[in-house]
Amino acid sequence: MSGWMAAASSSWVAVDPSSHFSLHNLPYGIFSTAANPTPRPGVAIGDNVLDLSAVAQAGLFSGPVLSSSSQCFQQPTLNSFMSLGRPAWLEARHTVQRLLLHLPVGYHGRASSVVVSGTDVRRPWGQVQQAAGQAPAFLPSSQLDFELEMGCFIGTGNELGSAIPAAQAAHHIFGWVLANDWSARDIQRWEYVPLGPFNSKNFGTSISPWVVTPQALEPFARPAPPQHDPAPLPYLQQPQRSNYDVALEVAVQPAGGCAGETVVARSNLRTLYWTMPQMIAHHTAGGCNLRPGDMLATGTLSCEGPLGAGCLLEATWNGSRPVELSDGSKRTYLEDGDTVVMRGCCQGDGYRVGFGECRGTVLPARPL
Amino acid sequence: MSGWMAAASSSWVAVDPSSHFSLHNLPYGIFSTAANPTPRPGVAIGDNVLDLSAVAQAGLFSGPVLSSSSQCFQQPTLNSFMSLGRPAWLEARHTVQRLLLHLPVGYHGRASSVVVSGTDVRRPWGQVQQAAGQAPAFLPSSQLDFELEMGCFIGTGNELGSAIPAAQAAHHIFGWVLANDWSARDIQRWEYVPLGPFNSKNFGTSISPWVVTPQALEPFARPAPPQHDPAPLPYLQQPQRSNYDVALEVAVQPAGGCAGETVVARSNLRTLYWTMPQMIAHHTAGGCNLRPGDMLATGTLSCEGPLGAGCLLEATWNGSRPVELSDGSKRTYLEDGDTVVMRGCCQGDGYRVGFGECRGTVLPARPL
Repeated sequence: MSGWMAAASSSWVAVDPSSHFSLHNLPYGIFSTAANPTPRPGVAIGDNVLDLSAVAQAGLFSGPVLSSSSQCFQQPTLNSFMSLGRPAWLEARHTVQRLLLHLPVGYHGRASSVVVSGTDVRRPWGQVQQAAGQAPAFLPSSQLDFELEMGCFIGTGNELGSAIPAAQAAHHIFGWVLANDWSARDIQRWEYVPLGPFNSKNFGTSISPWVVTPQALEPFARPAPPQHDPAPLPYLQQPQRSNYDVALEVAVQPAGGCAGETVVARSNLRTLYWTMPQMIAHHTAGGCNLRPGDMLATGTLSCEGPLGAGCLLEATWNGSRPVELSDGSKRTYLEDGDTVVMRGCCQGDGYRVGFGECRGTVLPARPL
Repeated sequence: MSGWMAAASSSWVAVDPSSHFSLHNLPYGIFSTAANPTPRPGVAIGDNVLDLSAVAQAGLFSGPVLSSSSQCFQQPTLNSFMSLGRPAWLEARHTVQRLLLHLPVGYHGRASSVVVSGTDVRRPWGQVQQAAGQAPAFLPSSQLDFELEMGCFIGTGNELGSAIPAAQAAHHIFGWVLANDWSARDIQRWEYVPLGPFNSKNFGTSISPWVVTPQALEPFARPAPPQHDPAPLPYLQQPQRSNYDVALEVAVQPAGGCAGETVVARSNLRTLYWTMPQMIAHHTAGGCNLRPGDMLATGTLSCEGPLGAGCLLEATWNGSRPVELSDGSKRTYLEDGDTVVMRGCCQGDGYRVGFGECRGTVLPARPL
């Protein structure tokens, strides 16, 4: 049996360098969302907001001041938090910094539901909360999304109790594929604390059928994004960090009719913040063994630019700004019959090293 | 993955009434002997093992299913047998009972770091925050804990895109083991949002070596805790919810010296709120497929009472109230050299159906 995990890079809070709200800023505000219209405190990070009420509910304010005062984040204003004074403010800032940056956040996924390109993917049922404060209902997901990722197959593994150092981890990589980590956002939102995604992601992951080797990709290695602040802990330090220059795109094609594909995302593997060798080092740091055939995925590969969002959640601003397809129809999330096609390619001097495509069509949810 | 068992001679002897492996039990496992070191399936009876490969070679599996499929016992794992489904399992049990009076099967690892009882477990390194507001450090866990659980092996699975209804899920269960889901609380606290536990739990899970079947456990079925508020959603509703009355205990024994074990926890599988069929229904509700050999664990089995906490995190009130061992030493979390022993048993009228034990000793963290 082989397992796989997907590691979300820090791109879940990717921040444009021109943003006022860098990780050095972390300004406070009151916000609400369509899904949860209750006004509540948050911290702006790039174009995202970290929900402090959710952080508090998850018990993550564990310091001496806020562990007993975290109800200050279950308020429609900041006054209560403000009144706690500077020790609370510093503690909150440190907690937020802790949550956002220091480690490659990973989770374990299901090996059984990894399917090859061309396999249809059935819309999952799951528990969703239709409005804030309501009890959940068991329904077909209405927020089915793709995630543009790449997957890395482990060739040689390590013994249980040992670790793979970051500097040697590249030698354990057998090769790469495109990966679509299908995600049901409504199910995910309801279930993910405290144990992470489960039904929202375990119903299917599509991969491209040909494993492209590091030997073929080596000419396209480029320096990875710098990591200075914070500097990675020593076990995550890797000399000459690099990623491959793989141009990636995602197209959506509606069912039937003569409408062509519409490219809804363009990104590049180069943008990966934590390199795959760093993820391997992290996965094995505690002594967990990797085995031949294990697959690790990058997490959503988003980058800058108008089509830079690697999933619809980001592209549509959490469903608030639909994207338009070439037939004039609009999408916040995927509809039945939509085909999602991912492609990735390295452009050489007169030749290409590519991955073919990773394709999947959304089938309607099964009858109850 | 296969486990192994040292087996005594196969000569038939009466079973001690205190044995976990009475003729009512008939658990499956993988074993080998000095005379025949090939790992192969067997059934434990008292201190003996019935060699199923020999039974098959002798043509004694003569029922409608296994007469044409008995090569499933000429394997180093139980997967083949597991995948044949419940008719094969019942036929095997009846055949063994007819021959001697015996029964079913063995164990499988679900993930790379599932290890059999008796395997040492090395203290993991990981990212921990030593004080609120501080940057994390990469250190050996100082809050290593056990979790008293039971694991359930899936025999027959389901197709991707389908679901296993709660009312039918029990028929997919091949059998049960004790499970220690070792956990590093300091690593867990730092990493678990938003994607759940990762390094804090992936370094090792110990299980008892013999898979005890539902057929053996059925006499000990008892009503599960009621679920009224909230009522489970329809897909989680199961007629006649029950758990098995398995008395569980956890003992800790320090390294060296002559100190004996100290029982630090007593619980019971009866307290499980979501039954395993409900968990199976939930796992597959979105269409995720389960496969033969997959293991699902219960989560920490805590109950009421002074020793009812199924892990040190709860027993010591998050490290604030140490527990005392018989040698006078105290524990908030586990120390190097500590051996954790879990036992579980059903008490019948003059016989027992039990799980043997699930044992592991904590090794010091590896040198950096």
